[in-house]
Amino acid sequence: MNYCTLCAAPVALRIPDDDNRPRHVCSACGEIHYVNPKVVVGCLPVIGDQVLLCRRAIEPRYGKWTLPAGFLECGETLENGALRETQEEAGATVQIDGLYTVLSIVHANQIYMMFRATLPEPVFAAGVESLEVALFDEADIPWDELAFSTIRRTLEHFFEDRRGGDFGLHVGQIERTPPRG
Amino acid sequence: MNYCTLCAAPVALRIPDDDNRPRHVCSACGEIHYVNPKVVVGCLPVIGDQVLLCRRAIEPRYGKWTLPAGFLECGETLENGALRETQEEAGATVQIDGLYTVLSIVHANQIYMMFRATLPEPVFAAGVESLEVALFDEADIPWDELAFSTIRRTLEHFFEDRRGGDFGLHVGQIERTPPRG
Repeated sequence: MNYCTLCAAPVALRIPDDDNRPRHVCSACGEIHYVNPKVVVGCLPVIGDQVLLCRRAIEPRYGKWTLPAGFLECGETLENGALRETQEEAGATVQIDGLYTVLSIVHANQIYMMFRATLPEPVFAAGVESLEVALFDEADIPWDELAFSTIRRTLEHFFEDRRGGDFGLHVGQIERTPPRG
Repeated sequence: MNYCTLCAAPVALRIPDDDNRPRHVCSACGEIHYVNPKVVVGCLPVIGDQVLLCRRAIEPRYGKWTLPAGFLECGETLENGALRETQEEAGATVQIDGLYTVLSIVHANQIYMMFRATLPEPVFAAGVESLEVALFDEADIPWDELAFSTIRRTLEHFFEDRRGGDFGLHVGQIERTPPRG
């Protein structure tokens, strides 16, 4: 951030009064421009024994598989955001069963919030951000071709919990990892 | 938002290519400035039969009672943010027991995420954003002097769940309500 969004004067990184960390503060009007983590919402759509994955048509991780998810927008609840992303990316209308994984990604300043969801009918279609959308049995999950650690973690929890018959909430953290070889 | 943070040129509200909602887009460099909901994290500190509340020394809702909570900062997990706010506002070092309420506030573009927490010792002190900090039995909660609906909802769930002996996750939504009184 170089300039103030209100008055276009240069901003400087300094600690405001009554604060304890550096912020972008306008040199002219004094406005403090806070930057905070963003929320990513999405669904784990389930039909019978299968889950629905999307292959990404956009960067980052073009061509890799993911669950339908994206940034929460202003004016929507977490659930509405997760349903919207599932509609947009997978052309799927699901019913939310519950919040399932809540993952802090400190190095990316993101909070992932994934819901378990039921896909009532095998109806889906690739949206503009997906190359293809497909149903997978556990044995066929493309573990080495998943786009994000959050997606891997969510799927790992799901299949493990399914064996145990109990889907609890999972709250955790994704650490930065070196690129896979 | 009037000006681009990168180049100080005026921004215009328009729908970018491959998007479906208006964004602030720079008229010169083309940068898209996304605005997304913010996360508020906090704790419900419990010691014995009592909970710890703070009386706000800042606007909004100066003088009203709240649980220690504030905006999640970049570079921290949800849990670390909740612990930090509890330290800053209530001078209390707590142990997190679990994520307890997740509340979407659509009209404020905020997601509240409150953790149940144990206060091991009755040690606390008002931080700069608090007028006072105190322990309350359920019978003494100042229900008519609470700062926010999210805090009311969290406390209501807590005392109800405590009677039932089971503290599950509560995911919900806070609707806009007319001012009380």
